[in-house]
Amino acid sequence: MIYMDNSATTRCFDEVAQLMADIMCNDYGNPSSAHHLGVTAEAHIKKAKDIFAQILRCKADELIFTSGGTESDNLAILGAARANKRSGNHIVTTVVEHPAVLRTMEQLQEEGFDITYLPVDKDGCVSIDSLEKAVSADTILVSVMHTNNEVGALQPVREIGELLKRRYPGVIFHVDAVQGFGKARIYPKESGIDMLSVSAHKIHGPKGVGLLYIADKTKVEPIIYGGGQQKGLRSGTENVAGIAGFAMAAKMLYDELEAERERLYNIKTELVRGLSSLEGVQINGIPGCDLTAGIPAAGLNADLLSAAIRNSAPHIVSASFAGVRAEVLLHALEEKDIYVSAGSACATHKPEPSRTLQAMGLKKEMLEGTLRFSLSKFNDEKEPQEVVRVLNELLGELRKFTRR
Amino acid sequence: MIYMDNSATTRCFDEVAQLMADIMCNDYGNPSSAHHLGVTAEAHIKKAKDIFAQILRCKADELIFTSGGTESDNLAILGAARANKRSGNHIVTTVVEHPAVLRTMEQLQEEGFDITYLPVDKDGCVSIDSLEKAVSADTILVSVMHTNNEVGALQPVREIGELLKRRYPGVIFHVDAVQGFGKARIYPKESGIDMLSVSAHKIHGPKGVGLLYIADKTKVEPIIYGGGQQKGLRSGTENVAGIAGFAMAAKMLYDELEAERERLYNIKTELVRGLSSLEGVQINGIPGCDLTAGIPAAGLNADLLSAAIRNSAPHIVSASFAGVRAEVLLHALEEKDIYVSAGSACATHKPEPSRTLQAMGLKKEMLEGTLRFSLSKFNDEKEPQEVVRVLNELLGELRKFTRR
Repeated sequence: MIYMDNSATTRCFDEVAQLMADIMCNDYGNPSSAHHLGVTAEAHIKKAKDIFAQILRCKADELIFTSGGTESDNLAILGAARANKRSGNHIVTTVVEHPAVLRTMEQLQEEGFDITYLPVDKDGCVSIDSLEKAVSADTILVSVMHTNNEVGALQPVREIGELLKRRYPGVIFHVDAVQGFGKARIYPKESGIDMLSVSAHKIHGPKGVGLLYIADKTKVEPIIYGGGQQKGLRSGTENVAGIAGFAMAAKMLYDELEAERERLYNIKTELVRGLSSLEGVQINGIPGCDLTAGIPAAGLNADLLSAAIRNSAPHIVSASFAGVRAEVLLHALEEKDIYVSAGSACATHKPEPSRTLQAMGLKKEMLEGTLRFSLSKFNDEKEPQEVVRVLNELLGELRKFTRR
Repeated sequence: MIYMDNSATTRCFDEVAQLMADIMCNDYGNPSSAHHLGVTAEAHIKKAKDIFAQILRCKADELIFTSGGTESDNLAILGAARANKRSGNHIVTTVVEHPAVLRTMEQLQEEGFDITYLPVDKDGCVSIDSLEKAVSADTILVSVMHTNNEVGALQPVREIGELLKRRYPGVIFHVDAVQGFGKARIYPKESGIDMLSVSAHKIHGPKGVGLLYIADKTKVEPIIYGGGQQKGLRSGTENVAGIAGFAMAAKMLYDELEAERERLYNIKTELVRGLSSLEGVQINGIPGCDLTAGIPAAGLNADLLSAAIRNSAPHIVSASFAGVRAEVLLHALEEKDIYVSAGSACATHKPEPSRTLQAMGLKKEMLEGTLRFSLSKFNDEKEPQEVVRVLNELLGELRKFTRR
């Protein structure tokens, strides 16, 4: 089996699942309990916070655990907008955000907020200029993702953060790092980021757990009310085992991040090179490198290609196949035990055309024939060759019927 | 070790932890993915829904999975109030609800809703009369818990549901069944209940998973926005392993519910009888049986006591100890490897006097000396005797210092 759908979700590390089972059956106390079973449970949470605080270079008490990336985005955006509505009414985001951000913005629009959606260029990137023009004295919140989930484009979050802190220090800056965390070193404080969303199941942790970094002094209202856990910002008994498993997965990844990034970039480069060698294939989301159909990257200088790819995420490849429908190709690959995604698989299976790809200016034909290949620690160097070989066969067969 | 803090949280069943570890490492697909790893993940959710639909005698598509009891309560209450605000502005609840309900009501009050809090009698029970008087043409929502988490009082939810359906069919009836589920057969449709909240970690399932039953045609707004999972009512990748584990735990309990209820009632009866035989101890929350200090239940007719106890929850005993502070007694018990709770341990360790006990009219001295003993499948028949023996020793020692 070749699983290249890691941006949808990842296989849980065995060590993480084992730790969680152990905590659920042995250290099962409620962290709010006064006796030592409660203290032991709370110690697991404290240890997890310390791990994340070290990875993010922040304070442990700037971290809130949630039920996942979606809730983290919701708490950040709804919470900050509602808590700061007296300071202004305007919010800036981008057209390529995850639905957890975009749908939340639509809700805020219903509540009376004014939302500006920044466009992206053909590689899926937002420009600092357009952001600078959009922000005004009425802006209270800017939300820009770290790594795009559909094409792997990296947004200039550090530059945005620095700009905001310099020119608009009152504006809260939220970054959805669900796809970037575990693949890059991210230091919110040094980057002017006030809130950062992370998900466990994208980094070989459990589903149902997320993290939200909230910098000191950032005003946020809760979206869930109750027993007052987590400084009142997120009531409900903490998912102790899930939190501990999440932290373990993060530590395992960050302990060898640079080597793993390099390994993933090498796999991605192989995959891009191989896909580009096929007829009628276009690679999306790699800035500075025009890998459109008919200009095979295979013909490019290897150093140039390798450098260009390093301007995008190490684990996501978006490729459009002319004359083939993505769903058909996806299921044909599935028959060969290769798993990929058509568009983003984080939303329910609605066959809507991808907003991100549309915003990047993809033609309709390419839009409908786009697959996402996403990598993780469990992919190896031999897989790109096999995937390209199988695709070459399948494309020949499938195009027979569509081209004539 | 004697763990009698099961209303705070329970030990996860080994089988549940094993199933979850297996799913996290093997069936790790995203339920929204189009390929068969997604289909397999979705099948786990479907199976879980079928189990709950059978237990609750409802339809599978009336069930929404959440991150826990607190989120279920929030989604039900915030979601229904906000979605139905055009129909009215008035909400009825009780003074003895869990903070997940009470704090949420306070939030709705800030949003402009008018909340009526029903009182309880000395046993912690709401009266149908007071409810009937409180409901008006402006009422859109009634929220009453099934089993009180602090004293085990059972509320007349079936009678309330029937009354509402007969006289106010437009009013939505929500029941927080976090403490009742797994201990009683609850059929929302037959009881006129429109929404029912359940938590996994109170029934030997994982922390971080909950369920909300929402009857067809009940208008509810989401509180978390995103990919549109779960009919758009609860976005975010589903916690597949947690949901499957939750359903397994529920099935294990409901497959032998009546026998287990009987076993728990017997343990509770032993515990109540033993505690009542101690000097200066008052048992709270058992209707029709005046077990106040100085009238030892040990002297009561065994059949009467047994019958009275069956009018309260099978697993919760609230006892007040004159002349001793609950925290002191709790930690003294802890030293003897016996774990109980002072008040409800679902909220963070704030030493506030219990609102429930105050509402029941407990005197200050008894209020401050109240412990909760809560049982589960992992408690056995020999434990009450041991707990009472240890308490007898401790009370003698502790009261030496407080009484003089």
